[in-house]
Amino acid sequence: MNKNITVILGDGIGPEVTQQSVKILNAVADQFGHKFTYDYQLMGAIAIDKTGNPLPDETIASCLKTDAVLFGAIGDPKYDNDPNAKVRPEQGLLKIRKELNLFTNIRPITIYPTLSHLSPLKNEKLQGVDFLIYRELTGGIYFGKKSKSEDGNSASDDCTYSSFEIERVAKLAFEAAQKRQKHLTLVDKANVLETSRLWRKVVQKMAASYPDVTVDYLFVDNAAMQIIINPAQFDVVLTENMFGDIISDEASVLSGSLGLLPSASIGDKTALFEPIHGSYPQAAGKDIANPLASILSAALLLDYFNLTEEANLVRNAVAWTLEKGFVSKDIDPVNNYSTNTIGDLIKDFI
Amino acid sequence: MNKNITVILGDGIGPEVTQQSVKILNAVADQFGHKFTYDYQLMGAIAIDKTGNPLPDETIASCLKTDAVLFGAIGDPKYDNDPNAKVRPEQGLLKIRKELNLFTNIRPITIYPTLSHLSPLKNEKLQGVDFLIYRELTGGIYFGKKSKSEDGNSASDDCTYSSFEIERVAKLAFEAAQKRQKHLTLVDKANVLETSRLWRKVVQKMAASYPDVTVDYLFVDNAAMQIIINPAQFDVVLTENMFGDIISDEASVLSGSLGLLPSASIGDKTALFEPIHGSYPQAAGKDIANPLASILSAALLLDYFNLTEEANLVRNAVAWTLEKGFVSKDIDPVNNYSTNTIGDLIKDFI
Ligand SMILES: CC(C)[C@H](C(=O)O)[C@@H](O)C(=O)O
Ligand SMILES: CC(C)[C@H](C(=O)O)[C@@H](O)C(=O)O
Repeated sequence: MNKNITVILGDGIGPEVTQQSVKILNAVADQFGHKFTYDYQLMGAIAIDKTGNPLPDETIASCLKTDAVLFGAIGDPKYDNDPNAKVRPEQGLLKIRKELNLFTNIRPITIYPTLSHLSPLKNEKLQGVDFLIYRELTGGIYFGKKSKSEDGNSASDDCTYSSFEIERVAKLAFEAAQKRQKHLTLVDKANVLETSRLWRKVVQKMAASYPDVTVDYLFVDNAAMQIIINPAQFDVVLTENMFGDIISDEASVLSGSLGLLPSASIGDKTALFEPIHGSYPQAAGKDIANPLASILSAALLLDYFNLTEEANLVRNAVAWTLEKGFVSKDIDPVNNYSTNTIGDLIKDFI
Repeated sequence: MNKNITVILGDGIGPEVTQQSVKILNAVADQFGHKFTYDYQLMGAIAIDKTGNPLPDETIASCLKTDAVLFGAIGDPKYDNDPNAKVRPEQGLLKIRKELNLFTNIRPITIYPTLSHLSPLKNEKLQGVDFLIYRELTGGIYFGKKSKSEDGNSASDDCTYSSFEIERVAKLAFEAAQKRQKHLTLVDKANVLETSRLWRKVVQKMAASYPDVTVDYLFVDNAAMQIIINPAQFDVVLTENMFGDIISDEASVLSGSLGLLPSASIGDKTALFEPIHGSYPQAAGKDIANPLASILSAALLLDYFNLTEEANLVRNAVAWTLEKGFVSKDIDPVNNYSTNTIGDLIKDFI
């Protein structure tokens, strides 16, 4: 198989973890006789520094004609805490979602028993936890009209959803549930928000076409509790953009290591794969960052290419490093391996 | 001291837990020579059933001339899951907040060491956890313009904040921080939302007037993680309405029992005190509900009347029942006491 992959290294630890994924993808290509061609592009603080634009047109152009995008992380402290900053690295991320029409973000919440001592939760809470969060990624308050009064003393954000925007992400979530435990939970705030009532109406209506899927409805405040009290109840969670941002980050703490969680953002033409962790500028360049979230994101990219065997091999390799204790500093502060060494070990396994 | 208190029993377990609080307030009045006069009013599903209106004008009128409002809980399953319902019990709650101008909701997050086995978190995470959440309660997307397209295929919610709305709740939060560990954390999404950037600007500006208070800024997705990973870092958390709804419910799981958490909603003329738990219709009328969240809300009401000694006596009485194991079924499924018995024991203690 021949595939083009746009690689966006980004900021902080983005480059060093993503380089490991490229190494692994190359090992997979060698092993299975595929050819992956990479096109490196800029986004984030590094793009602002080099071009003044957090998402240069060249990057968009590359992504629009590529088969998939592998992305590291963006963000730099020099752009935070300044409510008046004109350009922000995050604008690049929001813009790429919109330009590539990446309307669904998928985050698997997986527990690794060997790491349960790192979880803030009591271990009995982690039994049977295995769910996917489907977050709508190109609508809602993130992309609604924003305004400020002239005197600067009032500000507004609009949250709008159409049935169409809800249906396309809900369809993917229903289909995922059908392949799993057949349980979909819609998280909304239908007791307060008009948009949430539309979500509930659309999902209730669609449920009739998926009679094998049980559909539950949870208010977002209750969901924020249930994710901690009883996370094993979830199979596929579906929600809008802002709620998805909050509850998927909340759920990411269950496993005990942010350094292990991948994500996929799916559009109709292409898809983008990235670790859920941020750019951790403090760790950048030190060869200590955990590459597994990026490598597992590369596995999701292989899934997207329908290379299931290859993807499973990468996941097995990751599981093997965890079992053997070939882990980075965030997981074992005493006996640990460098970012590069972990990448090499996984490459050799493959 | 003579005080008028409007009592709203509400739905589900609301009446039975609130009756215990009235019992305790009467015991306090006897003991300290105060006179509390109660005016019972309707709100919620019971008000819809009796009057068609979730918040009758009579209830508003009583609340507007009273010294404080003691409230139980509202909500009934027959009004849920119907995106087309015309009246909903929650409308009563939202309307009373607006009518009484209850712009600040305060939730203390307290850990009771005797209950730490009930917490979903590992107990070392609970060390030193003691914080207050200040949630803006009458603005933002809750009260913004809502609209639906004619064909019903599009819906919108507007989120607007003014500097004035931010300042008045921030002032209370800064003052609370000054009396505590002098640490304020603003939770927002300033990397995406215009309203959040206004929150950050206003709070940054106000910080200059509170030089003894250290101010931190956290994005809401990160806050949702930090509350679980490292809850001891917080002292006073300040946030807007919707984020406050989510993170205060999330934080409420730390203690291990929702049945213990009170809240205060403060306006410029009056204040409303309620347990954070809902109406739990399944438990209603069974005399098994935990009355402590309501009783601790009554303690906050005594604080509001500046009856600090009385409030502390109530809190000591509650701590004593927990130590002695005089607890309801949610805390001890084997050896437990009824709602009424726990109320009586606390009354006798006082
Ligand atoms: C960086 C930020 C704009 C982004 C978001 O809120 O969507 C991030 O938190 C995420 O979840 O990918
Ligand atoms: C019932 C609902 C409208 C309410 C809210 O969201 O504010 C509740 O969740 C709360 O936090 O008091």
